[in-house]
Amino acid sequence: MKKLNFVVIGFGGMGSYHARDLIGKNEFVTTYGVYDIAEDKQQTATEEQFTTYQSYEDVLRDKAVDAVLIATPNDSHKDLAIQALKSGKHVVCEKPVTMDVAEFDAIMEVVEETGKVFMVHQNRRWDEDFLIIRELYRQKQIGDLFQIESRVHGANGIPGDWRHLKKHGGGMVLDWGVHLLDQMLFMVDSPLVSVYADLSYVLGDEVDDGFIAHLTFENGVKAQVEVGTSNFIKLPRWYVKGLKGTGIVHDWDLSGNLVMQKETTEKVAPTPIRAGQGLTKTMAPPSEEMIVRDTLPAGKADFSEFYENFYHVVAGEQEPVVKNEEVRDVLVLIEKIFESAEKNQVCHLEK
Amino acid sequence: MKKLNFVVIGFGGMGSYHARDLIGKNEFVTTYGVYDIAEDKQQTATEEQFTTYQSYEDVLRDKAVDAVLIATPNDSHKDLAIQALKSGKHVVCEKPVTMDVAEFDAIMEVVEETGKVFMVHQNRRWDEDFLIIRELYRQKQIGDLFQIESRVHGANGIPGDWRHLKKHGGGMVLDWGVHLLDQMLFMVDSPLVSVYADLSYVLGDEVDDGFIAHLTFENGVKAQVEVGTSNFIKLPRWYVKGLKGTGIVHDWDLSGNLVMQKETTEKVAPTPIRAGQGLTKTMAPPSEEMIVRDTLPAGKADFSEFYENFYHVVAGEQEPVVKNEEVRDVLVLIEKIFESAEKNQVCHLEK
Repeated sequence: MKKLNFVVIGFGGMGSYHARDLIGKNEFVTTYGVYDIAEDKQQTATEEQFTTYQSYEDVLRDKAVDAVLIATPNDSHKDLAIQALKSGKHVVCEKPVTMDVAEFDAIMEVVEETGKVFMVHQNRRWDEDFLIIRELYRQKQIGDLFQIESRVHGANGIPGDWRHLKKHGGGMVLDWGVHLLDQMLFMVDSPLVSVYADLSYVLGDEVDDGFIAHLTFENGVKAQVEVGTSNFIKLPRWYVKGLKGTGIVHDWDLSGNLVMQKETTEKVAPTPIRAGQGLTKTMAPPSEEMIVRDTLPAGKADFSEFYENFYHVVAGEQEPVVKNEEVRDVLVLIEKIFESAEKNQVCHLEK
Repeated sequence: MKKLNFVVIGFGGMGSYHARDLIGKNEFVTTYGVYDIAEDKQQTATEEQFTTYQSYEDVLRDKAVDAVLIATPNDSHKDLAIQALKSGKHVVCEKPVTMDVAEFDAIMEVVEETGKVFMVHQNRRWDEDFLIIRELYRQKQIGDLFQIESRVHGANGIPGDWRHLKKHGGGMVLDWGVHLLDQMLFMVDSPLVSVYADLSYVLGDEVDDGFIAHLTFENGVKAQVEVGTSNFIKLPRWYVKGLKGTGIVHDWDLSGNLVMQKETTEKVAPTPIRAGQGLTKTMAPPSEEMIVRDTLPAGKADFSEFYENFYHVVAGEQEPVVKNEEVRDVLVLIEKIFESAEKNQVCHLEK
């Protein structure tokens, strides 16, 4: 099968990154053209030697186009995707896929009707820091993980542009949150039972500038997922507790380590430490004789790269790595997060 | 007024610490004697040159005794305290003061009747790490604090003895939790609205081996309070976010710092960083031109030391630093924490 011809819709930060690099430099797909409603973006694309279209209808009428990549503000994804599918194009859509579950279901109906491939670009499933934690979850180097904490902290506020606006699907739950939640649901092999979430609005925007969500899974795993944009000091990217030890990934540089109980019958009590007004043995570091330190495992994907996978899905040769049911589960969770925060209550997921 | 004569009831870890050091070396109070129901503990106390009593009744009958310090398992505090108060003794009680609010209220009735002083040894109000954060909260060096995270992490499990047993009031909520919750309610000058809590039982004990609690205060402050006993890597003791910066206290060694926004009209955008599969400006460190680093403020108490305060309260010269209403508020919160975790729901506090 020849390379798939993609037209990139929306030539902003992500769209241009797809056009130039992700699609542009890929062996399975190619950037066949670009379309943006803004004249200046069209201009930039032309200057970069991309073929531009004069309208979305022109893109969809072009028989040579196999697929579109949608990288426009979130509130426009649904209509653009449905139009493309109905015109016989496959679709890759940026995240968050839609504003809510209802919009997503509307797309799914058309996917069903047309039989075209629709895949959401949840690219952070390929992030090495995440894959390290997924490896720990699966290979149990520190025993079964029962507490998984995933944090992304910045101090630069909400990115400038439509991401400040509610009507375009702005805010950090939909921006970074959708990645972290997708990673968590992709990793934990058990249904989500409930969520408690707290949204932050300290920067004075109409959309959330961060959140903390507590997830409870049916298998007993608890997760804390957090995004902050006013954190001048970062907490670690990942902090996980297993039945036999603890793991930490400090940052995207993948620094971090594991500390585990030593498998021994020997019992060396910790030395009490001074803690404020008292001594504590409970909170003293465990004796060095009782622990083992180790490096983090490698974070390698045991599944194809995104566009390679997309190509094979179109060819009917692979299952999608990012399944639409999974994307929908994340949207359901996001709706529950908004509901939980608004009502200050725990929201339960329906089975 | 002469030094107050204390008899220490219970010569375990905390009791013996009071007898030798906290009371024993204090200029306002003195260890007049010791009583423990266990023969071996009586023996140890005698060897250490303490006068021992043969029964609790003997202690309470002794006119020379002004006060008792109760450092016995938690389920015995109520009866011992009531007996002492009715015998005309003042009482200092170890924490957690009682098993629940009802027991505490029973003590308060007798305090009311007898007019004797009853004070709970919430000694961690004097911890320097806490006082640093309290200073930040009050002096607003990083602006109004809106997110306060207080964690105590160990990897040595629940301390051995009655603290493993439910009937004696074991578990980490009642052990370390009561300190961290007391600090939080003492610091935040606003009523608590609600709590969401998750208890951990991974060590297989009948009592909790740790917990995470999310508190929401009426003034908008959110707090996360956490105790863990299977954390082989620690997260920072304190992590606080203010409207103008972030503060961290790593450990009881008081290491840590502040990072703040610089007050400037200059605007230097952060340099995007590579983060897994993409670049991010949002989560990049702020430009060095835009921030100021500072050391932590000093953590000094603006109130008397515990036994000095107790002495002056008995003399009618000071208000207690640890007020019984405050102690009761913490117990109410602890009951809500147990309820929240059991029902997996947010519990609201009554006004």
